[in-house]
Amino acid sequence: MILHSQHPAEAAPSARIVGMSERTSPPNVFDRILDGEIPCHRVYEDEHVLAFLDVGPLSRGHMLVIPKERKAHLDELSDEAAAAIGRVLPRLCRALKTATGAHAYNVLQNNGAAAHQVVMHVHFHLIPKTASGGLGILWNSGKLDDATAYELIEKLKSALQGAA
Amino acid sequence: MILHSQHPAEAAPSARIVGMSERTSPPNVFDRILDGEIPCHRVYEDEHVLAFLDVGPLSRGHMLVIPKERKAHLDELSDEAAAAIGRVLPRLCRALKTATGAHAYNVLQNNGAAAHQVVMHVHFHLIPKTASGGLGILWNSGKLDDATAYELIEKLKSALQGAA
Repeated sequence: MILHSQHPAEAAPSARIVGMSERTSPPNVFDRILDGEIPCHRVYEDEHVLAFLDVGPLSRGHMLVIPKERKAHLDELSDEAAAAIGRVLPRLCRALKTATGAHAYNVLQNNGAAAHQVVMHVHFHLIPKTASGGLGILWNSGKLDDATAYELIEKLKSALQGAA
Repeated sequence: MILHSQHPAEAAPSARIVGMSERTSPPNVFDRILDGEIPCHRVYEDEHVLAFLDVGPLSRGHMLVIPKERKAHLDELSDEAAAAIGRVLPRLCRALKTATGAHAYNVLQNNGAAAHQVVMHVHFHLIPKTASGGLGILWNSGKLDDATAYELIEKLKSALQGAA
């Protein structure tokens, strides 16, 4: 196993230079799928959401679920777009289990290059877990002490008042 | 790093035996938090959702977001409960970034023991990624061939008609 190798569905497209300022992000591969410039193996689509097979799967049935709203990170997404994704996830997970026979699966959504995000358009991975494939997880947990907890809760509650 | 060691927030509660048939699941630790039997460091609550700090964090600010609906796996959750979680995720992620200063983070939701789920109540992990902590990911990807894709798409579309 290797640490989050780049895979085809998340390969960064070549930058478009002509006519674009440095401040303008070039369309990424998911933008281009939404624009119909790049084909995809479409599983589901509604007004807010598109789901399609990952072309670099961790296991058979590995699927991506993306909002049509073009935001890089989950914290930038509108409530409406995020709710639309949430609403369809159970349905897609049921179909994934039925279609693949998998009993276990992971849902993973990465934000930021340091967190292994490659394509800068919000995407949820639905990844069946099988004996030979699926998501590998390293879990190096600590312990929450009360002082840290109280400090964090104060900061989080204060931030939430500004984040609604 | 170790492979998904059990951590305190996900430690299985002792089974309750008296008066319970084998077919009745004992309340798990998240049921008991929802029932007010076990305290938690509460971050956010609404009609459908509760968010609180993980007591065995992978990094500072590691948070759990759970539905009040008592289902073990995401595929069992109602559309309404799943949409309610989706709707609040961007807000919680913004607060997490503000409160911790993290720029990158992972959202992870595990289904089934084989996929590292310990507490059998749906929960989303929000995990800040820092230089020294956060989620470790092993990404051993393959390649999707057209024959497999077409077979999967047929099965998934057929399953979705029954999964709505």
